[in-house]
Order: sequence, then C-alpha cells, then structure tokens
Amino acid sequence: MDYNRLLENIYQAILPYAQEGKQASYIPELAKVNPDQFGMCIHTIYGEVAAIEQADTRFSIQSISKVFALAMCLSIKGDDLWTKVGKEPSGTAFNSLVQLEVEHGIPRNPFINAGAIVIADLLLTHLENPEADFLRFVREVSCNDSIDYNKEVALSERKEGYLNAAIVNLLKYHGTIENDIEDVLHFYFMMCSIEMSCRELSQAFLVFANHRRRFDYAGITLTSSQVKRINAIMQTCGFYDEAGEFAYLVGLPGKSGVGGGIVAIYPLQYSVAVWCPRLNSKGNSVMGIKALELLTTETQSSIF
Amino acid sequence: MDYNRLLENIYQAILPYAQEGKQASYIPELAKVNPDQFGMCIHTIYGEVAAIEQADTRFSIQSISKVFALAMCLSIKGDDLWTKVGKEPSGTAFNSLVQLEVEHGIPRNPFINAGAIVIADLLLTHLENPEADFLRFVREVSCNDSIDYNKEVALSERKEGYLNAAIVNLLKYHGTIENDIEDVLHFYFMMCSIEMSCRELSQAFLVFANHRRRFDYAGITLTSSQVKRINAIMQTCGFYDEAGEFAYLVGLPGKSGVGGGIVAIYPLQYSVAVWCPRLNSKGNSVMGIKALELLTTETQSSIF
Amino acid sequence: MDYNRLLENIYQAILPYAQEGKQASYIPELAKVNPDQFGMCIHTIYGEVAAIEQADTRFSIQSISKVFALAMCLSIKGDDLWTKVGKEPSGTAFNSLVQLEVEHGIPRNPFINAGAIVIADLLLTHLENPEADFLRFVREVSCNDSIDYNKEVALSERKEGYLNAAIVNLLKYHGTIENDIEDVLHFYFMMCSIEMSCRELSQAFLVFANHRRRFDYAGITLTSSQVKRINAIMQTCGFYDEAGEFAYLVGLPGKSGVGGGIVAIYPLQYSVAVWCPRLNSKGNSVMGIKALELLTTETQSSIF
Amino acid sequence: MDYNRLLENIYQAILPYAQEGKQASYIPELAKVNPDQFGMCIHTIYGEVAAIEQADTRFSIQSISKVFALAMCLSIKGDDLWTKVGKEPSGTAFNSLVQLEVEHGIPRNPFINAGAIVIADLLLTHLENPEADFLRFVREVSCNDSIDYNKEVALSERKEGYLNAAIVNLLKYHGTIENDIEDVLHFYFMMCSIEMSCRELSQAFLVFANHRRRFDYAGITLTSSQVKRINAIMQTCGFYDEAGEFAYLVGLPGKSGVGGGIVAIYPLQYSVAVWCPRLNSKGNSVMGIKALELLTTETQSSIF
Repeated sequence: MDYNRLLENIYQAILPYAQEGKQASYIPELAKVNPDQFGMCIHTIYGEVAAIEQADTRFSIQSISKVFALAMCLSIKGDDLWTKVGKEPSGTAFNSLVQLEVEHGIPRNPFINAGAIVIADLLLTHLENPEADFLRFVREVSCNDSIDYNKEVALSERKEGYLNAAIVNLLKYHGTIENDIEDVLHFYFMMCSIEMSCRELSQAFLVFANHRRRFDYAGITLTSSQVKRINAIMQTCGFYDEAGEFAYLVGLPGKSGVGGGIVAIYPLQYSVAVWCPRLNSKGNSVMGIKALELLTTETQSSIF
Repeated sequence: MDYNRLLENIYQAILPYAQEGKQASYIPELAKVNPDQFGMCIHTIYGEVAAIEQADTRFSIQSISKVFALAMCLSIKGDDLWTKVGKEPSGTAFNSLVQLEVEHGIPRNPFINAGAIVIADLLLTHLENPEADFLRFVREVSCNDSIDYNKEVALSERKEGYLNAAIVNLLKYHGTIENDIEDVLHFYFMMCSIEMSCRELSQAFLVFANHRRRFDYAGITLTSSQVKRINAIMQTCGFYDEAGEFAYLVGLPGKSGVGGGIVAIYPLQYSVAVWCPRLNSKGNSVMGIKALELLTTETQSSIF
Repeated sequence: MDYNRLLENIYQAILPYAQEGKQASYIPELAKVNPDQFGMCIHTIYGEVAAIEQADTRFSIQSISKVFALAMCLSIKGDDLWTKVGKEPSGTAFNSLVQLEVEHGIPRNPFINAGAIVIADLLLTHLENPEADFLRFVREVSCNDSIDYNKEVALSERKEGYLNAAIVNLLKYHGTIENDIEDVLHFYFMMCSIEMSCRELSQAFLVFANHRRRFDYAGITLTSSQVKRINAIMQTCGFYDEAGEFAYLVGLPGKSGVGGGIVAIYPLQYSVAVWCPRLNSKGNSVMGIKALELLTTETQSSIF
Repeated sequence: MDYNRLLENIYQAILPYAQEGKQASYIPELAKVNPDQFGMCIHTIYGEVAAIEQADTRFSIQSISKVFALAMCLSIKGDDLWTKVGKEPSGTAFNSLVQLEVEHGIPRNPFINAGAIVIADLLLTHLENPEADFLRFVREVSCNDSIDYNKEVALSERKEGYLNAAIVNLLKYHGTIENDIEDVLHFYFMMCSIEMSCRELSQAFLVFANHRRRFDYAGITLTSSQVKRINAIMQTCGFYDEAGEFAYLVGLPGKSGVGGGIVAIYPLQYSVAVWCPRLNSKGNSVMGIKALELLTTETQSSIF
C-alpha cells in the first residue's frame, strides 16, 4: 500500500475541519502554539514509514506520556499495581474529583489524572533516579536520544495546577500515595512535558503494536501478554469521556493528549501518530480523530 | 486446531472454580436452574464447530438479547439512534439510576438497562409486530426456528421488576421514550426471556464475527462498518462495570447475561459462547470469564 | 396590633413583584388557575384573625398536605417512623432520585417526595379507611367539614406522574414500602389534591403554633414535644432546596406547595398562610416568600 | 430558676453515656486530651450564670470558630458575601468534596469546611492584620483578653490537612478564592486552633442570643437582623450532617466542633456551652447533644 498517498488523501479529505476546535490555553506555553499545524506519521511492523506535513515538529505529548508511565510501572510492579488503581473506564470527564472520592481514593484507571498521579507516585518509590530513568526509557523506546522534558512547560503547569494539586491531596488523604505531594506533582508534570514529533511517537508506539517482539528497553521488560493488556486499557480508557465514541468511529487502541496529539495502534500491523492542536469539547484533537476515522475506514483496519 | 480438545482442556483447567459465585435468584425461574452446569461452543468463520458439556442446554439469554435489539435498531434508525442513547461505557453498576438522571434521560449506552429500554421503545415504534419481528430476526440469525420466548420468565421479571419500572418511568419523565410504559417493559422483558443454548448463541454471533459476509436477516440489513461498530460497543460496554477487566483479561468484544451466558467474538476468526449460572459480584459468569481468558491466552487470539 | 392593616401594608409593598415567576403547569388543572391572585391570612393563638384579598379562595395545597400526613404518621408510629425516613435536609432539589438511591431507599426527610411517599405507604398500612381517615383529620384540624379532595387533580397528577412513579418503584425495589404501587401513588396524589383557602390553612396550622394546647383531632393525638418536633422538621426541610434561604429571610418553620401556597408558624404566637400561584425557580411562591419576609421583619417575629 | 441545680441534674442524668463515642485523633494534640472530661455553662440575658464540672477548662474550639468568622465577614461584606458561599444545608458529610465540585466552586454554606475556607480567604483580603484582628474580635466578644491561638495545634492540622488542602486547591481552581493557598490554610487552621472554656464560649455567644443589644466589638458591627440571620444559619447548618437531628432533638441554633464543644442559643433567653471530647459518628459530642436535649426538654425552651 502507498501509505504516503493514503495519508495525503486523508489530509485533503479532512481539510474542511481545519478551523474547528480550540487549542488548550490553560498555560501560556500551550496557548502560544500555532493552532494551524497538522502532522501525521505511520510505521508498519514491516518497516514501512510514511509522514506528511508537520510530522517532524515536536509538541507537548502531555497525557500520551501516561502510556509510557504505565508500561514502566506494570513492568516493575506486575499485577500488584491494580491494588492502587483500577482498569475500568471512568464514565465521566477525565479530571473529575467526584468519581475519585466516591471510590475511596482508588482512581478508576491509569489514564485519568488521578490514576496517572498514582502511577507517578509508584515510579518515584521504585526508580532510583525517576526523571532520568523515565526519560531514558522513552528515549530507548523511541530510538532517539534527543527527546527531552520541557521544564518551562512543567513549571507552568505546576503553577496553575490547582485541580491536580487537589487530586494529589485527596489521594494523600486516602493514603493511596506515599511520596511528598510536591515531588509527585513535579514528576507528574515533568512526564507530561515531554516533547515529541508524530514521527517519534509513531516510532515509539510500534513497540505496543508489535507485541510479538521482545519488549526490553532501558531495563524495562514486558511480556507479550502485558503489552496486549496495555493496549486493552488504551482501548477502554484512552480518550477520557470519549473512549466509546473513539472505539465506535476509529476502532483502535490509542491515547490522546491535550497538546493535540493522538497515537493509535493496529496490533501486529502498524502504529500511527497524528497531531493538530485544535481540540473538541472532550479535549481530543478534532483533525486527529477525523484522520484516524478515515484511516481505519479506508484500510478496513479497525480491530473489530 | 483441534477445538474440541482445546475446549476440553480449558474445562479441566477451570474446574477448580466450579463452585465459585452464586446464580441469580431475583426471580424464581432463574433461582431454580441447577447452578452446576457448564457449556461451551465455538464456531469459526471457516465452518469449524466444537461443543462441550451442556452446550446444547438452553438457558435464559437475558442481557445478551440487547445485542440483537441493538442490531435491529441500528438497521432501522441508522446513526439517528445515537440521539436517544449514548455509546460511552457507564463507569458504574449496570442498573444505576443515578447516572441516568445526571445525564437528563439519555442513557450512557445501549447495554445498560436504561439504554436497552430506550432501544425497546424505538423497536416498538418502528416494528409492525414487535414480538414476532424480533423473534423472527433472532431465529434467522441463529438458523433455528425453535428458539422462543419464555413468557413465564418474562411475566415473573415484570412482577419483580421495580428497578426497571423506575428506570422506564424516569425515561418517560424525561421524554426519552414514546410508548406506553407497560408495553415497553413487557417487550423488554420478553426479549430478555429468550432461551438459547451455547451452540445456538455461538452460531448466531458468527454474523458479528464475520463482518465481511452480507448481513441480511429477516429484512434487517447492516453494512460491514455497522457490524464492526456493534462489536466496538460490545467491547467497551458489554460487561457492566467489568468492561475494563474483561478487556484486560480476555480482550474480545462480547456480552454477558445474568442467566450466566457470555458470548464473545474474534473478528474474522470465530464466535464463542459459554455458560455457567454462577455469577461473580459484578453479575458475570465466573466460569465463563475464566474459560474465555484461557481461550484467548492459549490461542493468542485477543484483538489487542 | 392591627393585623389587617399590617397585611394590607405588606401587600402594597410587594405588589411590584406581582408578575414575577410562573405558575406550575405540569398538569392542566394547575396551569389553568389564574396566576394573578393573592391571598393572606393570619391567626394568633389569642383568637385574632386577619385576612386580605383572595384569602377565601381555595387552591391546591399540594405539598403542604405532607405536614398533615407526617402528623398522623408520627401519632401512629411514634419515633419508629424514623427507621423508614430520615429527618435531615436534602441538600438537593425536592424531586431528586439521585440522593434517594445513594441512601439505599431511605429518603432524607418526610417532605421530599420520596419521604412523603413512604409516609403515604405507612398510613395505608395503619389506617382502616385511609382516604376517609385522612380527610376527617384535616377537616377536624381545620374545623371545617367542607374541605375535600379534588379527584380530577389527583387523577391528572397520576397520569403525568412519571417521576413519582419512578420514585415509588425505586422505594419498592429497596423494600421500603409495603403496599401496592398504584395504591400508594393514588393515596399520595389524593392527599396533595386537597383544596383549602388561606383562611382555612392558617386556621389549621394554629394547632402546630400552639403546641401547649392538647393535640387530639379525629383520634390523632400528639404530645407538645411531638408538635414542636414537627415544627423543627418544617424549619429544616420545609422549602425544598431553599430551606436555608427561607430560614435566613423569614426565620419561621413552614411548608410550601407547588400550588403557590405557603404556611408558616411562630410558636406560641401565630400561624399564617399566604398564596400566589407564581413560583420562583425553586418551586416556592415568589409573593408568598416576600410577604412572609416582610411580616417577620415588621413584627420582629422570627424565631431567631 | 436554679440553673446550677438544673445543670447538675442534667449531668447526673447523662452520666450513663459518659463512655460513648471516641475523641478526634487525626492530630496528636487532639488525641492526647483526656476524653473523660465534661463541662457546661449557661448565661442568661438577665445576667444569670451557672457552670458545672470542667466548665473552666479550655479546649480547642475548632469549627465553633466558624461562627465568629462568619460574623466578621458578614459585617464587612454584607449580603455580597452570599455570591461566594451559599446558605443551604449541605445534606452530606461536612468534609465532602463531591458536593463542592457539583456546585462549581460555590460551597453550600459557611459552616462546611469549604465554606469556612472561603470566609477565611475573604477575611484575609479585607483585614489589615487578619490574625490579630480576628483574635481581638473574639477576645472582645468574650470579654477576655487571655483567649489565644494554639499554634502547635494549627501547625499540626496543616501537616495532616490533606483534605482541606484538596478543598482549597479545588476552590482556587474554580476561582472562588483570591489569596495564596498556604496563607488561606494557615489562617483557617489558626482560627480553628483557638482555645476557650465552656464559660468563655457561653459568655461569647450571649451576643448572638441577645440580638436586641447593640453588636459592636473591635469595630465589627452587626444589625439585629444580621445577628438573627447568623442564628438561622446555625440552625440549618450548624451540625454537619446532623443538623436535622439536632433541630429535632434540641431545637436550638448552635454550632459544634470536633474538639467536643457545642454552643447553642435560645434567642432573647440564654446561651449555653457544653463540652466532652467523645464524639458520635457524625463528629458531634455525644454528651453535649444529650445535655442540650435534656436542657430544652426540662425547660421547654426549644425555639419551636
């Protein structure tokens, strides 16, 4: 298949939606990104690569980092992890404190903020140099040593991060997290601040698409079954309150971020990353979802 | 692959769990079923069939009927359907009125009771002879004209069905349903009362597994894309508050019923039905989930 | 004090608000009442009476009937009553199913719909001729044998009463009520349908204001302490989600109804009834609350 | 009336309950108080005073301080105050974040933690020397210059105060509070840490009981109507999730604290303070509520 032509066709088809949605603006660093950018890249497990438009422009991966963090944590803790965080879809907006409280401090899944904060706390406990170790893992998975945190973004998020501070205090109140509140928040926001391009993200997520290949990066190992289970969680919980809609329209496991990026995988076939900063009301990239819907429709490649 | 031997091995491996869980007892008809029964049947799209133990014993399919109802309704209404019911996982127990109310009368998805009641109401409006038409559709899909309602079960459910009566009144209050409350409840409970064996269910769900085959039964037609979307909804919403757990452990789209049955499909490969009346605390068959977990592990056939 | 002049002055002062709010319209019988009516009547425990405008026009007392029902039930059951219904303010809208469900079928207090339905069920169980007995009690308390149900209103409410039907089904599901659902709803709506004028209501509530007088009407007896406790519940729960606001502005125990009536009492001093069909967003009479606020300000007679 | 004898009789009558309940233990300073202490003091507006047992032992007034803070804030802001905090009973536990979130950052009333934190923020904004000014006001109201903060208690509460930190972050997220989070929490905990005896509290609350007397202390002035409205809020919101129960059993406006103190007033008659550290499951002093129930029963002095 001529993937470059496929991506080009998709891009042309979704251009009418290019002005829909608004970029995130709760911190200055995200607000000043040019919203009229679009990138897309696909990697097949057979080594094919196609990339269009700003596929090499880096952006803030934000919540997409939660997949890397879950992978590390599942490698370290195994299924014990699930005593501190659930794996059910949240059924409400991604930043809800309500649901967190109802369930006595056990967040619904690792991809809502509360759950990702629990993962951050566990990594703080078990990694020797959490920031360095996490970055090394992401770099190895991505085969790219230039990937880095954006400290300015992280600090800016912390400054305005009252909701996440409320969540981490509530988790501490319930005894779910062990480390110092500021340390947990700092590490959480650092992970979110990583910047990657569509090409780099697509490359990195190939390790989830190709679960038959040995998963061993920077000392982090996962069995084939564990990789598939991470994919299952992406499927059911990867898109905030729009997980069902994404499954219906696109039909692939994936994860979105408030920076406008989305990654998705078709197991044993390909990984794909798409980026456009304009978000719909649920916090997901408008162009990103349109592009992936077309991709799976054209290639008949949804997992269903 | 020798599927009969595979199923036998699975059965032997899960026997230690045979006494776990309790059968549903809220109506006498379900309470008096012998809980120590187990059946399992698999159909591949290539025509292979394997069946073990009580695979030919009929049981009350209960909520599994919601997939048939959704298929009919999606065929008749198309995507207009989604103005009256959502497609997001519920995040709470399957019979919650709370969440229904929060969302102003629009149930979260077609597989929670409230959503299935909305589907029942739509079918009442659009079918000429709802009971006869629905049965004819199920019979054609199953290639089996002896499948029937169990009126005694339906009447018994109506008699004790205070929670569903509360839900239907609340939906009526919000203007979501059109027909008379008693008519809706009667039709809803009739659909749930259908009795089928594992062999019959597995045969029937082959039409969802094999989405490349023309879907046209008793005048109900669906495109390949629509069938895949029904599968997507089974994946995200098919197991009440355990959808994430089922995705994690089994990794197939499916649907469970309080009678102890579970169906699941591996797109373009097979459909499978399993039955044992003993349920876990979430209302899903203990042995059924164990059996399917082993099946996808042994055959490496999860969709992820 | 010249109470007639006082009431006249109050009426003049609140006239600017005469067009604010809208009358209840969920049943035709309430919708066709002329909204531009106002009545007010006060009875002191020393025998003084003052009445202005349409103080002798009867209207649907609706939820005000819940005080009579509670009085009967407390007399019959004593403090055992509180195992089936709480006495805490609801903190949410009067017709919320959410809160009901959260508390496992025990309504928060006897003045939200769910609580009043529980009271109706208890009266059905313990009275020989519930409708006749309840009417006789209200007539005796009011010293007026012409007071009666309005069956047309009751039937009309039942026809549209989907929300109350949802509540009663949910209560039945939780095992809180004993009698047949239709019987409970019918009796509940009959009680709400009673029609009284401001003069009659004010007269009737004198028995709550004057708790030192022996309470013994139609065989229903209450101790002074029990009467005071009913007053306490009126104070904390009598105005749906506006109980705190009413306490703040008016400072008297009281009860409102969706027909536009409000009664209030100043213990050992007076009872007062006011009526105007136009309601605020919380379901309480706009002119009624204004009138009572002025009454307690002018006479410095709030209980605080 | 011989108030000393009355209090002695009450004390004898409630002695059987002396071992019921447990003292607060979430900070060491409260945990190490001897739980087997009891004090009670009454002041009438005619100058009578009676005090028994440890009526002169100081204890942590905790949430009782919220009444003083509300008085100051109402004096400074007037009814504008109510744009930032409601005056409806909460209907749930005093420390619920759920309800706070549902209402978009506007706490239900000034006596739940979230509401008191909003009051603290307003005082920080409007007072020149918040800590000094607040203490001066409490001292003048109490006619006692030795009353003081307990900084050790305040610091200890801050150290463990994850739930209140969650609340204040959530309020900041919603834009309800203006000042720095740490400043608000520090001031809030300082106010809670004030130590007073039953005699001092009873004396202080006489200013709320006697609303006909000019209210002017340390520059804080309130009209008679404003004092009565504070009383109304004590009535409807003063006892966490037990406000209705307290109104039913005792029938007086009042306020409790987790240190085991309760104050109550009978307008134009008396104020009373009672203290015993053992709390019931709702966080109110067991002996305190029993004592006040007996007091109003014996003297027939409930406001209803």
